[in-house]
Amino acid sequence: MRAIARSAYERGALFVDPFFSDGAVKRTRLERADPETLAFVPPWYGGRFLALGEQRAARISIQPNPEPRVLDGVDPALAGRDGLPYVPEILQVIDDRSTNWTVVPFPTQAWAEAAHPDLEPSEALARLEADLVHVCRLDEPDPNEAWQRRGDELEAAAERLNARRLDAMHFEGPGTDLTIGLLPSSHWAGARTTTAAGIAHFANVPTEEVWTGPDPTRADGVVRSTKPLDVEGALVRGLVIRFEGGRAVQIDADENVDALRGRVAVDGGAARLGELALVDREGRIGRLDTVFLNTLLDENAASHIALGNAYASSVGDRDRARANQSEIHVDFMIGGDDVAVTGITSDGERVPVLRDGAWQL
Amino acid sequence: MRAIARSAYERGALFVDPFFSDGAVKRTRLERADPETLAFVPPWYGGRFLALGEQRAARISIQPNPEPRVLDGVDPALAGRDGLPYVPEILQVIDDRSTNWTVVPFPTQAWAEAAHPDLEPSEALARLEADLVHVCRLDEPDPNEAWQRRGDELEAAAERLNARRLDAMHFEGPGTDLTIGLLPSSHWAGARTTTAAGIAHFANVPTEEVWTGPDPTRADGVVRSTKPLDVEGALVRGLVIRFEGGRAVQIDADENVDALRGRVAVDGGAARLGELALVDREGRIGRLDTVFLNTLLDENAASHIALGNAYASSVGDRDRARANQSEIHVDFMIGGDDVAVTGITSDGERVPVLRDGAWQL
Repeated sequence: MRAIARSAYERGALFVDPFFSDGAVKRTRLERADPETLAFVPPWYGGRFLALGEQRAARISIQPNPEPRVLDGVDPALAGRDGLPYVPEILQVIDDRSTNWTVVPFPTQAWAEAAHPDLEPSEALARLEADLVHVCRLDEPDPNEAWQRRGDELEAAAERLNARRLDAMHFEGPGTDLTIGLLPSSHWAGARTTTAAGIAHFANVPTEEVWTGPDPTRADGVVRSTKPLDVEGALVRGLVIRFEGGRAVQIDADENVDALRGRVAVDGGAARLGELALVDREGRIGRLDTVFLNTLLDENAASHIALGNAYASSVGDRDRARANQSEIHVDFMIGGDDVAVTGITSDGERVPVLRDGAWQL
Repeated sequence: MRAIARSAYERGALFVDPFFSDGAVKRTRLERADPETLAFVPPWYGGRFLALGEQRAARISIQPNPEPRVLDGVDPALAGRDGLPYVPEILQVIDDRSTNWTVVPFPTQAWAEAAHPDLEPSEALARLEADLVHVCRLDEPDPNEAWQRRGDELEAAAERLNARRLDAMHFEGPGTDLTIGLLPSSHWAGARTTTAAGIAHFANVPTEEVWTGPDPTRADGVVRSTKPLDVEGALVRGLVIRFEGGRAVQIDADENVDALRGRVAVDGGAARLGELALVDREGRIGRLDTVFLNTLLDENAASHIALGNAYASSVGDRDRARANQSEIHVDFMIGGDDVAVTGITSDGERVPVLRDGAWQL
């Protein structure tokens, strides 16, 4: 945080506003506060994000926050009621495209031990640091140039998908047989995002995905998550969701299923899909074969879908009202080398998209 | 912070909002940002305090913040432009009496080394911890009862001062010969403060002072500060101020005078007095003969005055418009065993108040 502040002031920042949330305090709240109060969020938490948008600020979010496993053992039904540090105003600021923003990882000891539980603590931290240097391409001679190049690749894949005008996507693999409909103007994008004022930024570093906004009324079948999912600190393992008519009608898991069920109960859109993203094998994260227990990395290791709000930029203006709306946005991984992804055109043609993790178009 | 959060939730708090400011980031700003921007404060900084007032929140401020010496070597003229983490909305919330609040110390390594520079770092921390346990009366069998008793003593002294209806106070000592006028309704108080809703609270722990709001148009003479003054991280040593007609017309110091001059330049009331406080020898802080380099402790070691805003509760309603108004409130120590304090009544009678640090009335 101090290094970022120094760089920002050196580049002319008006003000650097470091703020944090503490996983241990969140855990204390879940354990000791009146359960009926857990949905309370001070109004200034959301107000700060709206003000950052008004100021056309740059935003940098450092992960993991909270750190993985900090809520282990807490009743997941309670954990599901407290979505902090996430607040819905973040989605509004993203959709307004008023801030240039990025989410980046930082290696903490607690995260290292969660991601590499078989290593000694000091080895675990060294390994996580090395992992992050690699997946963030900091081991390239010119990391910025390396990201611009990878961004070009991802955006080219997105353009090829857009050119095929697909009507639905079909995922097939162990425990998974799910078809997700797209909207007529569902737009595939990757890597860079651009603010309303024209500033291009990588919203995630690392990023390896090509993504779009699906039709929230068309998802049918069953999907098995291919990685554990961290729901604001509660680890959901063995997640299986069955969809009917776009809605998650059955959610099961081996551990902590109530954390996700709690989030999905917050509003009508929370049980429907707001994002569909494809990740190929060229990404650096999947190759490490490590479960990082953090969405920023894990969602970029494999193809994924998200329950909850769609990003406005992922569909065209004419379909904006049809894109999913919700206070939540929870990504979970459904892809892998053994999950085939096939596009379906409106006249029923099946178009291979990913086989063994490699682009087919 | 985590321990306070736990206690608060156990006692039924709706929400605990930990926020912090980082002295190292402040230093980076002063060193690298455009000097013309240093007075900028994000609007949500003040807004959060106003919202805490609206919520009738309890507020706990943990000192030191920033830690002493963190700004050593920074141009004090620049430091004077950035008053954070202080924001003027704090004064508004105090005057509204909408929050029950307290300021408490916590022993950090950096503070320990600044307060005890002659000790080894580990000894310094152990000494500071012992100091704080003692001055906060945590070594009493029942610390709360001990504070209630000391509060009764201070409030009794305040009542004796109120009963004499003094018109002015005269400070005489080495380098000091200063007379400060009082307003007809200047009210002496000590220890406890009460919110508009009737919650009694100690606004400072420790607290050893009996204080009032002076007449901002009547202060004449010269005063030598008896302790170094920490102005938001810049240490002002050897401070001497000359007053004429209530106004600080000359401010000199051996070190960092510009940090204080910068603060005093922010508005018309900043060069006038908003507080006058007396500390007797029964307090535990002065006896330690340690310069803690933090106002919470040092102001309670010795009698002091403050440049800037008066607290509304220190004068009666009829004089409220005459009490000093400013964005700043900077306390500095002018008392000690060798500084005699004498009250002067409106008909010229001289009433001994403190001699050798002991109450005379």
